[in-house]
Amino acid sequence: MVPGPTNVPERVMNAMLTPIINHRSDDFRSLYKTIVSKTKQVFQTENDIILLTASGTGAVEASVINMIRKGDKALVPVNGEFGNRLADLIDAWGGHAIRVQSEFGENPPFEAIEEAFEKNEIKAAYAVYNETSTGTTLRYLKKLGELCNSKGAFFIADAVSILGGDELPVDKWGIDICVTASQKALAAPPGVSPISISDKAKKYLKSSPPPTQYFNLARYFRYFEENFETPFTPALPLFFAFNEALDIVLEEGLESRIKRHATCADAFYSSLGAIGFKPFAKLEARSNVVIAFNYMDGMDDSKFRTSLSKQFKVLVAGGFGKLKGKVFRIGCMGEVNKYHVMRTISSINSVTSMLNAKTNDEPLGIAAEKLKAIP
Amino acid sequence: MVPGPTNVPERVMNAMLTPIINHRSDDFRSLYKTIVSKTKQVFQTENDIILLTASGTGAVEASVINMIRKGDKALVPVNGEFGNRLADLIDAWGGHAIRVQSEFGENPPFEAIEEAFEKNEIKAAYAVYNETSTGTTLRYLKKLGELCNSKGAFFIADAVSILGGDELPVDKWGIDICVTASQKALAAPPGVSPISISDKAKKYLKSSPPPTQYFNLARYFRYFEENFETPFTPALPLFFAFNEALDIVLEEGLESRIKRHATCADAFYSSLGAIGFKPFAKLEARSNVVIAFNYMDGMDDSKFRTSLSKQFKVLVAGGFGKLKGKVFRIGCMGEVNKYHVMRTISSINSVTSMLNAKTNDEPLGIAAEKLKAIP
Repeated sequence: MVPGPTNVPERVMNAMLTPIINHRSDDFRSLYKTIVSKTKQVFQTENDIILLTASGTGAVEASVINMIRKGDKALVPVNGEFGNRLADLIDAWGGHAIRVQSEFGENPPFEAIEEAFEKNEIKAAYAVYNETSTGTTLRYLKKLGELCNSKGAFFIADAVSILGGDELPVDKWGIDICVTASQKALAAPPGVSPISISDKAKKYLKSSPPPTQYFNLARYFRYFEENFETPFTPALPLFFAFNEALDIVLEEGLESRIKRHATCADAFYSSLGAIGFKPFAKLEARSNVVIAFNYMDGMDDSKFRTSLSKQFKVLVAGGFGKLKGKVFRIGCMGEVNKYHVMRTISSINSVTSMLNAKTNDEPLGIAAEKLKAIP
Repeated sequence: MVPGPTNVPERVMNAMLTPIINHRSDDFRSLYKTIVSKTKQVFQTENDIILLTASGTGAVEASVINMIRKGDKALVPVNGEFGNRLADLIDAWGGHAIRVQSEFGENPPFEAIEEAFEKNEIKAAYAVYNETSTGTTLRYLKKLGELCNSKGAFFIADAVSILGGDELPVDKWGIDICVTASQKALAAPPGVSPISISDKAKKYLKSSPPPTQYFNLARYFRYFEENFETPFTPALPLFFAFNEALDIVLEEGLESRIKRHATCADAFYSSLGAIGFKPFAKLEARSNVVIAFNYMDGMDDSKFRTSLSKQFKVLVAGGFGKLKGKVFRIGCMGEVNKYHVMRTISSINSVTSMLNAKTNDEPLGIAAEKLKAIP
């Protein structure tokens, strides 16, 4: 139950056993085309799709080094470690990140973003849609897309930990570049990262490629447009697995999948609240895919998580950076189902009861009631 | 029989089915340590090892962006497409590649390299050990290491298509950074690229990290030294597979493995020569892992390779760049065994006989005789 890599269904694991093929062959071209067409459906986009053999960080980096040149101003809402990291990357690369900040656990005020647009010539806005480090989701992506569009700025979304687990209609929200990764809400093994790219962004990045090769998106486009190939050897078994994972997403249906994530999240927030934990994120910013709770006073992070993992075989994540020791985080993504949720809640309830020497069965009833929405 | 990705043994494929683990757990730390220790044996080095989730090109790029700064001069012997690509990357990154060239199929004269060192302040020499595009191997790596050492230059080897299939004692040859990839002579699936890094190179790159994250080696060192982890989510199934592939290499023994490759290569050169083909590379530069032959006059690349693949189910590669249509290339790497070699030779012999309307059984006898050296 950590926030990725998530559990991978057996069908997807087994797809990795497909014999290795030549990546300069019709077999590969047909696989690549199929993956691209399914990915478009999951991204809800008509834009082009590029697949990288890299973790999500690599794909986020690609969105920076292909779009940002020396001195370019890029707006970044920052309310956690990944937002910080993205802004730092833009600065290190020679751009100028305009950080719009808030306390962790909140969404930076939209008015401050509008103000930053008024005061600066912003070339692109980079938004971390789901901040894995704090369990918060930026709930005004659509509005931000409209703002970018009205100002002629590129709009780039880091959706690594959320795509497939919450609403994200890429075209409707005007997202020029949307980045995700295989091992989060899409429930495939880690190592493949898809990126959608609008015509406007494609035109720009082709006119101004970065001084490197591996994340040079113009090069990926050239190989794709000429031959439906990748420029460099792709991680073939992970491509086969990702293809199978997309099938599962489409079989379930995107809408049902998003609803399932919301129901599981609701069960977590309500029942862990009834145990006595307080969610880290403010109500309006709470994530449905990464659930972060503050520890109760005096509770020890290491004791809690060790007992959960050793005695109850349930793995949750600790805090990150300045939240280390203060929160625990649950991955509520991918193939998460009602049994995962009930087992996690009952285990947390047990460990908490044992640490605090008192029992409470109410949270289980609350969760069971909420989870009835899932067939 | 293409020059990578190569066939992957069933044991290695099956290792990918190991359940996905948390990459911030003791299970992963112990896997990573094991892989590093085995990789050191295969590289014949005491240097540190970093594993990237990327294809070989990504790892080669890491060796450039971590070591080269604006205006730095880097010597690059160029005798094929990959040498060219490496020199271009150095130039694009802001370095200054000093190309020492020769005709494709030959090794650039060592005297010209010495001369380039006399005339320029060379910070690093970058050598493509095996030029996959032409089937040539740079046979003076040891001498080049001594030269670099005497001049205080870094010595960096791109051994992507050869490590595990030919001699490459990293420490004995004084290689500061050696880069390879999983899917060539090590016979694992593509997507993992190990890099060995000397203390001298490590000290330098820590003092001057690049303005990016994904290939920032100082960052990999920090995570490895503090926690035996990777900074970004690794492609876990490919790590499990690579671990198993290293076991197979060590069970066979590096020496036997290299000998097997040499024997198979010898059988290819002798018997295809007896059919009437001429090797593309000069004798002293011939590769044991990528076997390139010129087509006979009037032979059509597409007809030849289509017949081989459709009727005989043997896949070989065509030429690359300016050699397109002029040569064919055989991958003689990884798990290549005497049956692969015999089947490839007999199929090529058959196709050639059919295209030229004459038969010749001598090449098979020659190959069978050579292959007796393999148990």
